[in-house]
Amino acid sequence: MEREFLSKLADRIPAHPRAPLGVGDDAAIVTTPTGRCVVSTDMLSDEVDFLLTECLPTRIGRKALAVNLSDMAAMAAKPIAAFVSVLLPETGAADLADQLSEGILKLAKEFDVALPGGDTNVWPGKLAISVTILGDPTEHGVWQRDGAKSGDAILVTGKLGGSILGKHFDFEPRVREALLLNERYEINAALDISDGFAIDLDRLAVASGLGAQVDLNSLPISRAAEQLSQRTGKTPLAHALGDGEDFELLFTASSDVAKQLLADQPLDIEIRQVGEMIPTPGLWSSDRSVNDSSLKPLAVTGFEHGN
Amino acid sequence: MEREFLSKLADRIPAHPRAPLGVGDDAAIVTTPTGRCVVSTDMLSDEVDFLLTECLPTRIGRKALAVNLSDMAAMAAKPIAAFVSVLLPETGAADLADQLSEGILKLAKEFDVALPGGDTNVWPGKLAISVTILGDPTEHGVWQRDGAKSGDAILVTGKLGGSILGKHFDFEPRVREALLLNERYEINAALDISDGFAIDLDRLAVASGLGAQVDLNSLPISRAAEQLSQRTGKTPLAHALGDGEDFELLFTASSDVAKQLLADQPLDIEIRQVGEMIPTPGLWSSDRSVNDSSLKPLAVTGFEHGN
Repeated sequence: MEREFLSKLADRIPAHPRAPLGVGDDAAIVTTPTGRCVVSTDMLSDEVDFLLTECLPTRIGRKALAVNLSDMAAMAAKPIAAFVSVLLPETGAADLADQLSEGILKLAKEFDVALPGGDTNVWPGKLAISVTILGDPTEHGVWQRDGAKSGDAILVTGKLGGSILGKHFDFEPRVREALLLNERYEINAALDISDGFAIDLDRLAVASGLGAQVDLNSLPISRAAEQLSQRTGKTPLAHALGDGEDFELLFTASSDVAKQLLADQPLDIEIRQVGEMIPTPGLWSSDRSVNDSSLKPLAVTGFEHGN
Repeated sequence: MEREFLSKLADRIPAHPRAPLGVGDDAAIVTTPTGRCVVSTDMLSDEVDFLLTECLPTRIGRKALAVNLSDMAAMAAKPIAAFVSVLLPETGAADLADQLSEGILKLAKEFDVALPGGDTNVWPGKLAISVTILGDPTEHGVWQRDGAKSGDAILVTGKLGGSILGKHFDFEPRVREALLLNERYEINAALDISDGFAIDLDRLAVASGLGAQVDLNSLPISRAAEQLSQRTGKTPLAHALGDGEDFELLFTASSDVAKQLLADQPLDIEIRQVGEMIPTPGLWSSDRSVNDSSLKPLAVTGFEHGN
């Protein structure tokens, strides 16, 4: 739906000279007479992104800011300021606002993000919270998802899958990691895994006019994916491939850069190579663990909504 | 409520060096390593700001952007780009999105505002639409509401009151007017009349540490205020003083500057002097038409929510 609405907007308005990147990346780049900034907006709403009856409002507030911080990480932009709009249900509005702001403020402080304004409404409806974040494109430039080159190594931070067991609320936006990688290495394309590894990798590949080959055996599978697998009957690998909201970085670099980066392991979390960009469109899998290097189509699993 | 939530935020976070203006003006000023931008965010929601059952969605879309443009006008900032987040009810979502975007796009084109991104959700709730707008503080600086000086003339553009009869949807944000005034004249303080002339003037006065004396006879009363008065039994003047959503500019300048400005009448719409900033706190009225220059307390009428 988001795509449909945005493509309507995009179809009708030609790319504006002040926003050359346009719709479709994790954030937009806006050019002002004095400089450039990177802007992203994301809204969370009750019964779609969370169940207010089952979640602590502090975690909802934190997440509303965190998903936007993750978009800044996806662009390797330094977060500067966030603007929060909230729709509060009439019952218990003041208390709810208090708890939401506690979650927002703590994370804003942690990432040194200013909160200079917002708009709060009490209404006869459910809770929704929209955050728009401004970031600074550092001197090292921004990452886009359309810059991957054939032969690039595909890399991910951290571990994947099963975020519904907790990480989808408590994830650490990879802002510091992105800024450090961008400073030290030449990264060709990047995004944050928000809707699922497979679907997000497919988007990166499509945007870059390429395909992607995934070595299934190398995918970093989280403990949560294994735990969840015991409940769902799906394999841990299926969870790592298709679960949304990992909010890890998925990025590509030339094989030389990747080799260096993997040797350095410059982050507190592990970076792993999980595949390679290839000229053939589509998602493909191989499994080197069983000595099978033939390519099989890989299902594009993940959430279809949002980005 | 907005004030309460925001003041909670403001209380807890000291003014951030990158957002020195903080909460409380029409928009925030954000400083990035490369420059400054002016940012405002406003949300409209069903049953609070409009009734979807009684309004054309094109008008709702237009208004969602227009109120933010009006905030840019209040700061004399040039609008650059807007980010739109929408919550769509499940029934008829695609059609509704189409009509909203029609209203947004037309006004964005008129004001040369880029629409590089947003977030759209379909949910089991009512319609809400949040817009965050970025503006450029021109070389002439931004207007704030706290800069009025004692003895300043109080000036307004256009006519006031009765906007509920149509202007609250179809108003022209005074962006061009503000940019022209800022270029040619030294304006000391300004805001846009969103909640009502009296309450907004009171806010300007409080922010500037002053009071305001209003010459009731000079208030520019709209035809709509007169029409509405026949239905409500309130006087047209009461409507001009207390009705919200005029979205006219309310600003102050030294008496010399005001004299020049009133003689020039540089806009397509009339600018009128309606009073004077005074050292005594509070809102006060005089009525020169009946030769009564004594000051009487003037009720601070208008909407209490939002800004």
